[in-house]
Amino acid sequence: MSDTGPPLYSELFGDAEVTAHLSSEAAVQAMLDVEVALVRAQAALDLIPRSAVAPVADAASAPHFDMRALAAEAARDGNVAIPLVRMLRQRVAAADASAATRVHHGATSQDIIDTGLVLQLSRAVPLIAGRLNEAGQRMRALAAAHVDTVMPGRTWLRQATPVTFGLTAAGWSDALGRASTGLRSALHAASVIQFGGATGTLAAFGKDGLRVAETLAALLGLRVPTLPWHAHRDRMASLACALGLVCGTLGKIARDVALLSQTEIGELSLALTGGSSTMPHKHNPVGCAVALAAATRAPGLAATMLSAMPQELERGLGGWQAEWEVMTELAQLTGGAARAMAATLGALEVHRDRMRANLDATGGANMSEAVSLALTPRLGRDAAHATVASAASRAASEGRPLVDVLRSLPEVMEHVGREVLEQLLDPTHYVGVAAELVERVLEIEEG
Amino acid sequence: MSDTGPPLYSELFGDAEVTAHLSSEAAVQAMLDVEVALVRAQAALDLIPRSAVAPVADAASAPHFDMRALAAEAARDGNVAIPLVRMLRQRVAAADASAATRVHHGATSQDIIDTGLVLQLSRAVPLIAGRLNEAGQRMRALAAAHVDTVMPGRTWLRQATPVTFGLTAAGWSDALGRASTGLRSALHAASVIQFGGATGTLAAFGKDGLRVAETLAALLGLRVPTLPWHAHRDRMASLACALGLVCGTLGKIARDVALLSQTEIGELSLALTGGSSTMPHKHNPVGCAVALAAATRAPGLAATMLSAMPQELERGLGGWQAEWEVMTELAQLTGGAARAMAATLGALEVHRDRMRANLDATGGANMSEAVSLALTPRLGRDAAHATVASAASRAASEGRPLVDVLRSLPEVMEHVGREVLEQLLDPTHYVGVAAELVERVLEIEEG
Amino acid sequence: MSDTGPPLYSELFGDAEVTAHLSSEAAVQAMLDVEVALVRAQAALDLIPRSAVAPVADAASAPHFDMRALAAEAARDGNVAIPLVRMLRQRVAAADASAATRVHHGATSQDIIDTGLVLQLSRAVPLIAGRLNEAGQRMRALAAAHVDTVMPGRTWLRQATPVTFGLTAAGWSDALGRASTGLRSALHAASVIQFGGATGTLAAFGKDGLRVAETLAALLGLRVPTLPWHAHRDRMASLACALGLVCGTLGKIARDVALLSQTEIGELSLALTGGSSTMPHKHNPVGCAVALAAATRAPGLAATMLSAMPQELERGLGGWQAEWEVMTELAQLTGGAARAMAATLGALEVHRDRMRANLDATGGANMSEAVSLALTPRLGRDAAHATVASAASRAASEGRPLVDVLRSLPEVMEHVGREVLEQLLDPTHYVGVAAELVERVLEIEEG
Amino acid sequence: MSDTGPPLYSELFGDAEVTAHLSSEAAVQAMLDVEVALVRAQAALDLIPRSAVAPVADAASAPHFDMRALAAEAARDGNVAIPLVRMLRQRVAAADASAATRVHHGATSQDIIDTGLVLQLSRAVPLIAGRLNEAGQRMRALAAAHVDTVMPGRTWLRQATPVTFGLTAAGWSDALGRASTGLRSALHAASVIQFGGATGTLAAFGKDGLRVAETLAALLGLRVPTLPWHAHRDRMASLACALGLVCGTLGKIARDVALLSQTEIGELSLALTGGSSTMPHKHNPVGCAVALAAATRAPGLAATMLSAMPQELERGLGGWQAEWEVMTELAQLTGGAARAMAATLGALEVHRDRMRANLDATGGANMSEAVSLALTPRLGRDAAHATVASAASRAASEGRPLVDVLRSLPEVMEHVGREVLEQLLDPTHYVGVAAELVERVLEIEEG
Repeated sequence: MSDTGPPLYSELFGDAEVTAHLSSEAAVQAMLDVEVALVRAQAALDLIPRSAVAPVADAASAPHFDMRALAAEAARDGNVAIPLVRMLRQRVAAADASAATRVHHGATSQDIIDTGLVLQLSRAVPLIAGRLNEAGQRMRALAAAHVDTVMPGRTWLRQATPVTFGLTAAGWSDALGRASTGLRSALHAASVIQFGGATGTLAAFGKDGLRVAETLAALLGLRVPTLPWHAHRDRMASLACALGLVCGTLGKIARDVALLSQTEIGELSLALTGGSSTMPHKHNPVGCAVALAAATRAPGLAATMLSAMPQELERGLGGWQAEWEVMTELAQLTGGAARAMAATLGALEVHRDRMRANLDATGGANMSEAVSLALTPRLGRDAAHATVASAASRAASEGRPLVDVLRSLPEVMEHVGREVLEQLLDPTHYVGVAAELVERVLEIEEG
Repeated sequence: MSDTGPPLYSELFGDAEVTAHLSSEAAVQAMLDVEVALVRAQAALDLIPRSAVAPVADAASAPHFDMRALAAEAARDGNVAIPLVRMLRQRVAAADASAATRVHHGATSQDIIDTGLVLQLSRAVPLIAGRLNEAGQRMRALAAAHVDTVMPGRTWLRQATPVTFGLTAAGWSDALGRASTGLRSALHAASVIQFGGATGTLAAFGKDGLRVAETLAALLGLRVPTLPWHAHRDRMASLACALGLVCGTLGKIARDVALLSQTEIGELSLALTGGSSTMPHKHNPVGCAVALAAATRAPGLAATMLSAMPQELERGLGGWQAEWEVMTELAQLTGGAARAMAATLGALEVHRDRMRANLDATGGANMSEAVSLALTPRLGRDAAHATVASAASRAASEGRPLVDVLRSLPEVMEHVGREVLEQLLDPTHYVGVAAELVERVLEIEEG
Repeated sequence: MSDTGPPLYSELFGDAEVTAHLSSEAAVQAMLDVEVALVRAQAALDLIPRSAVAPVADAASAPHFDMRALAAEAARDGNVAIPLVRMLRQRVAAADASAATRVHHGATSQDIIDTGLVLQLSRAVPLIAGRLNEAGQRMRALAAAHVDTVMPGRTWLRQATPVTFGLTAAGWSDALGRASTGLRSALHAASVIQFGGATGTLAAFGKDGLRVAETLAALLGLRVPTLPWHAHRDRMASLACALGLVCGTLGKIARDVALLSQTEIGELSLALTGGSSTMPHKHNPVGCAVALAAATRAPGLAATMLSAMPQELERGLGGWQAEWEVMTELAQLTGGAARAMAATLGALEVHRDRMRANLDATGGANMSEAVSLALTPRLGRDAAHATVASAASRAASEGRPLVDVLRSLPEVMEHVGREVLEQLLDPTHYVGVAAELVERVLEIEEG
Repeated sequence: MSDTGPPLYSELFGDAEVTAHLSSEAAVQAMLDVEVALVRAQAALDLIPRSAVAPVADAASAPHFDMRALAAEAARDGNVAIPLVRMLRQRVAAADASAATRVHHGATSQDIIDTGLVLQLSRAVPLIAGRLNEAGQRMRALAAAHVDTVMPGRTWLRQATPVTFGLTAAGWSDALGRASTGLRSALHAASVIQFGGATGTLAAFGKDGLRVAETLAALLGLRVPTLPWHAHRDRMASLACALGLVCGTLGKIARDVALLSQTEIGELSLALTGGSSTMPHKHNPVGCAVALAAATRAPGLAATMLSAMPQELERGLGGWQAEWEVMTELAQLTGGAARAMAATLGALEVHRDRMRANLDATGGANMSEAVSLALTPRLGRDAAHATVASAASRAASEGRPLVDVLRSLPEVMEHVGREVLEQLLDPTHYVGVAAELVERVLEIEEG
């Protein structure tokens, strides 16, 4: 059984640009980058001859490594750094035997694997943030364009008082902005090297350990943490949570879009994607499914990162290993969800007429709060609520518009006139500060 | 960035034979098998010409399909069945245009994807069960060989009353037997076709739907469920839970092995695997790490399958899609954990001398319960417990064996003689029905 | 801050009858029941005087124990069995000092806590199963009553080919039946005593351990497992998964009910429950929210049980403790979801007219598959699909019924006559074997 | 079955001070505080008579409310705010009928429940942070006191190169500092009111909505968010993740303490807590079990909060309800873990002699890296590694100290003298920059 070709769903659930930094080959290259930087750092500090750098740098190119052999040997050695270092030394030794002895000096597998992963994420996550930014811009454009587009608000999946589509889109943008900020912040906090040698003391470097660490970090564009963090995994787990929060936020937006584009609601639709294999009339919200799938999978992956935290002493036995595939999978899914929702929002069509028709379809029932509030000063709160509830119930059971029933009630008409009642039941008059709220979002985002 | 080569950790965390049935290519082949069987079933029932079968069967070979194109088109169509059917039709049409129109007739993408996954699992899971069987046999051999090998029991990671290594191994075997039985049973329950057409009515077949279903299932070696199960995912989720229970059980055994092979305990060791990249003296319990990593990851994956269950009406939007990669990942991890622990148990070395030395190291403290029970009839339970607790505390703080302290206590010596005390403190006399319990396990497993 | 009164949401998310067996007091009583049975078992075997039984049995009544003191002392001792045994001994000693020394002899805390929990679950879970049975009966009644009630099938939340409401309800019943069977089966498997003494050897009973175990189990209505299972937690984790599967199944049904009772769909409605605090016209699907909340929480709780499985050697340090509140919480949530959905199904109103109106609202678009299949023999599959897809697209954009557009197409009308087209677009003619499938479910359930 | 008394494990797994703010009664009081502030805010803005404030404030005291009735009515209404508002109005009306009509005006249940929860957390979380601070101070004291206390480093649970206990404690402190900072930051971000009325527009206040919101927030000591966040749950989910990260970090520390205090390792011990119900010599690390139990449970709870994020439109159906008990449970568990580990660290005894004895027990094997590095310049890296690996293997199999074997090897002794070898094998000379790393942690924390 050959294994050429990408995973079947890598493009559906991923984002090709993000995934490129999270592939097996990208992982190998990142680890090699760390090994090269480590030799370079020691040379820069004159701890080893500068002549050692070039042979190592020349050899450290991922496409030259046999991925199948790496996978096989990783299974025996327990991680991929051990065979990778072995192969790298062999490649370097073919050119310069002395330089080969400098490879991986003073480092442990975990230094290379963890720092390599940090490098990968520091390359991949900004691309995800870029997709979120793209989606956010589209949302703000929708919010601005639809600041006055009234639609039914829906709680418990039932029509409630009206909102505007601008407010809905502004809410999406506001939440996605927070998720994006959180993601950038967690990436920043995690952008530190892991460098401690076998047990975190950098003992192989004698007293030079911290100088090597500082140079290494500078070469990689990362920072030096206060301490090596080998068995303290909070930075990675925190980044996993931030990715999970992005997926959750995109999932909420996806669910809204999917619900609003149901056949019977039809307030949103999508430029055509996702045909059916049998039904000619179907065009499915594929992007929403991708984001909701990511929102369904991300919690388990983030929880795995949290579960893996209590790692034993100076190196985890099981917990650390559990992280390796989980972090990249989570970042890939987040990238895919971001790509899918950026595309979905780009293809979104807003149907004002359906929004209005749906508002009107309840014959004013969704405006009952407004009527009740207007009657409260006259009837008292409880009687007002009871009067309107009974009218709404009658309207529903008789299939009549609420306005008709209300007009037939003397206790209502003696307090509010025909015209006031009309106005009370007009949803465009009952969206409160929706426009101001949209404005607040647009201002902040531009600031 | 090329993506040739297997995932870096596919061999460490997987089992090559199991993974072979869970790869992208295996998924494609399984779906093609379903399409072929569907044509064959209709032909067998004379619903379509028998001549349609050969061209479809000939074309339905996974290696002929462009995996990269499938992945790309799945991203647009929302699942891989849509482009796969399109490509299959094209391939068939090249040979026989009429046969091509028979492909996928009456089925929906979900029929093909779900039934294909069931086929894959029905091929992969028995291999996992085979590995578990291998591990179980080794455990039972260890239980039989060490039925009288006394070692410290440990609760809260502290020495408690003694056990035997035979009892420990029998406990592992007993638990793994349950997990394995549960896995086979969940696989059996899940070995049904999904076949319902667009919304579960098999409408495209008129009144022939159930006959086609029965023939299709028979051809695939699966059963027909009472109803199509498109949006009812309990069978898959239940199988995921069964896989999770296997991982948890293997993880418990792995944790025990890792703890008992700590440098300072040394009661177990492993034939050499897992060298260190820097420390020449290290040989790491790689298999235990693999199983513990699986036990750390499996709960999140099983939870994802449970979370995905509330799928919308006749087809899930997000939930179903979330399952696709999760089920195969979970099965792969379970396969890897089973393989790793079968190997670990095969390489296990048991050090009776260290077990005995560790028992003796506490100077009898771990036998305090026995002494306390012996004193109870004379002193009353509370006084007996207090006397021994105070002696144990003194022994610990003074670094003396408990037996010495007890011998110095008149309230003890007037009730139990020197010899009885000696016997009370002999761990080999205080393992209760351990041997009978081992026997119970060995009998059942052979039965 | 006093803590009298039940948790605020115990009734919303629970079922009072189920919760009664899962409360703190019920836990204490169950542990006391185990202690009494242990004394009784030894007396029955003449290992201790029969006179010890009555004083212990008399003292072992939960209402006599100070729950606040128990909670406080459990925090110091690390579990509740230690202070409970202490208090029980004191209470017994007040009546019979000798009997007091028999209390808890040979057992360890884990024996009492685990077996107590098994007792609680063996009392609570059958009540949950009873609720599921109640819900299932209602579903089967709905399936029978609506075997011919045609409604839109919906995939991706969009209208697809028609189904019947009978088929929908039969699918619910079928899935819930499996979940219920799985729950009973997992409970049966878990209905074993945990009884091993300090480390599982029953050493304190010498060679009588297994006889005591058998008598103890018989007195409690439980079985003796092959081995003590102290650190092998699969039976509990498996029961947790079974509870999770029930919640997931109920959640799927709840989601369907909620979606079908949306304002704009209105195919189902609920007898009035769940008013709004401000909106007089709102009646919310509270039962669906309860079940969906349980389906959202259960996966994390089941995952916790799986995560806790790799417990250390003869007693877990952290993992075991993690289970205590989780199992009862999960059982309570499942009980609440079962109660809520039984009530919801009992209050369900089915609106055939709205189902039909919704079917008709797409002007036949949801019947496009039928038309396409009818044209396939004439036009070939691809041309047939393309013709209907283009017609559906035109119908949608022009706001016309599909039938009108189709009638205007010569390539259609030359192959299917006006009447045939009419019939093809009649959803009641396109529900395949829906009625047979309903029948299969009804037969099995009655069998 | 009565339900008086606290949950059995509330004190073991909780912190009484933290729990006091998370109890049912505290929840009710927080919601009442919001209702009072809402009336007060409107009075302050002269939207309602100031005379309405006192009657509402007087009535809004949790102890006056019947918790049992609230729980029962919440089950019918779907949340607790609805019956609470009803009861509050009744209580107010008894004193002032007009004031009663002002209660809850313009708010929806979610405003009260969400803002009430924020209030509760803003009271409870700082107490947790205080416990973390307490634990952190103890860790820094340990780090300072043991900056030169050499002990075995351990990777894969095997001895590796030496570390210092100061470094271990500094690593704990560093990680806990980050977790604590993250918790405070997530609490700050979440300290906003939820206030939007039925669907987030504040429509009932006309154009005054934002002014009311600002006054309400100021009265409650919270901030006004850009937008109402009813169905956007990221702030709560993010706080849940921060709590999960605290539990994970405490769990890692607990695991280290538990491992280092194993009978056979004995490098740490705890002042006596946690006796055994049967074994007089046992003193169990209860605090570690509490923290590890929290670390086992928190991931599932945090995952639940992430899973619940995709909430429908203007109010979640199932997702929102799922959060209610989960957030308080997670905060309680975190409080308990923080309390338990603060106490555990306060009771920690460090045994330098055992650390040294354990280091020496391997006969220098854990120093093999140092010897290998010293030989590398002479023998080349591979030969050096192979020489030492073979010597270590021989030493292990023959039960001799590594130093003896090395001394017998001419290829070693010709390169390193007897004295240098001695020094190379002295662990106190091989802890690299451990002291500097401790210093870095101590400086930062004091800064």
